[in-house]
Amino acid sequence: MSTLHTDRDYESDLRKLREQLLLMAGRVEEMIGESVRALVDRDAALARKTIDSDHKVNRAELAVDEQCLLILVKRHPMASDLRFVTRALKMVTDLERIGDLAVNICERAIDLAPLPLLKPYEDIPRMSDVVQSMVRDAIDAFVSSDSDKAEEIMQRDDEVDELYHQVFREILALMIQDPRVVECGVHLQSVAKYLERIGDHATNLAEQVIFMVRAKDVRHAGKLGG
Amino acid sequence: MSTLHTDRDYESDLRKLREQLLLMAGRVEEMIGESVRALVDRDAALARKTIDSDHKVNRAELAVDEQCLLILVKRHPMASDLRFVTRALKMVTDLERIGDLAVNICERAIDLAPLPLLKPYEDIPRMSDVVQSMVRDAIDAFVSSDSDKAEEIMQRDDEVDELYHQVFREILALMIQDPRVVECGVHLQSVAKYLERIGDHATNLAEQVIFMVRAKDVRHAGKLGG
Repeated sequence: MSTLHTDRDYESDLRKLREQLLLMAGRVEEMIGESVRALVDRDAALARKTIDSDHKVNRAELAVDEQCLLILVKRHPMASDLRFVTRALKMVTDLERIGDLAVNICERAIDLAPLPLLKPYEDIPRMSDVVQSMVRDAIDAFVSSDSDKAEEIMQRDDEVDELYHQVFREILALMIQDPRVVECGVHLQSVAKYLERIGDHATNLAEQVIFMVRAKDVRHAGKLGG
Repeated sequence: MSTLHTDRDYESDLRKLREQLLLMAGRVEEMIGESVRALVDRDAALARKTIDSDHKVNRAELAVDEQCLLILVKRHPMASDLRFVTRALKMVTDLERIGDLAVNICERAIDLAPLPLLKPYEDIPRMSDVVQSMVRDAIDAFVSSDSDKAEEIMQRDDEVDELYHQVFREILALMIQDPRVVECGVHLQSVAKYLERIGDHATNLAEQVIFMVRAKDVRHAGKLGG
């Protein structure tokens, strides 16, 4: 009876951790969408609102950390549960930094709102769609222990990198042609860079999922050789 | 006798973890210095050598992770030891990413080596000196549990941010004056940005030290309200 009770408490502790991570990831994904919408619509008010909401993500990080420590102290998890909890500790840091990067995009959106439009935004919203899907799917893969899905996410980062370099070169060419657009161009290159970094963080999330599920480390797989 | 033995093994596990972190941090700090020396001396060979050495940092990350899991499974650490191990899990990720950023600086150094010199490098080596000292001192503060030192490190990040904005504005002005320097200028702005991000990672390291020592979370202290 007592063991059953403990098992149920343990399960409930792990479930709570899973729910906290899902909620936090959902909020972070929304922030990316809002930041790019603020940029495209030149909506400085939306940008400010999104910046103000970042404290919720910061709180969520602390709560997840606390829940992980509580499970480690009370439950001494082993094997796959231990991997789940230690990966959660790392993943929450990536999620928090993705939130910070969405804030950075909002700051650029505010700077860009009064400046003349450099060119219609096409590739930046596409980058945003891809990285949002990467974050969402990485957390889904985490809570459902789906390493195949996680692997597929890592491949999507190539598309993000390609879009980034495309945006970067295109804006560079515009700036060389016309120095009056340099200020605007540099801000936009930064936005593209922030989205590219979000893609990197989402890739880190996916790598942690694969590590957790397969109990081996795929990080640096191609980078270990001399 | 048996307890003594276990205690000694436990101490030795923790000491090994501390040593692994110190070694890894030392290597990462060297990489920052090498990357900026490669930039200033236009030494593409040094840049390539530093890029090639990044696999050592990647290996070190995996080894630290493994050591942390081993301690969690074998020793069920509590209180300050648990905080030490869970912070180490997070800090190693920051160290690995600092290594990646040094690689990014090396890549820019290779791109810049054949281009005409935009202006003598002054602020970028200064930024590099500050962030190197931040990384070194953060790890020293971690292994010696010195939260006062960690707090002082966090203040140094303001200097890094100020230098970054100074470099950024200065290069932007040069690019607006003369579009021929835009390519070079954008690379240099990226280098400054990478150093600024290294400063952020070093700040994360310091925050983890304070959390560990004071058993409270200083992260987001100013950012929670609202």
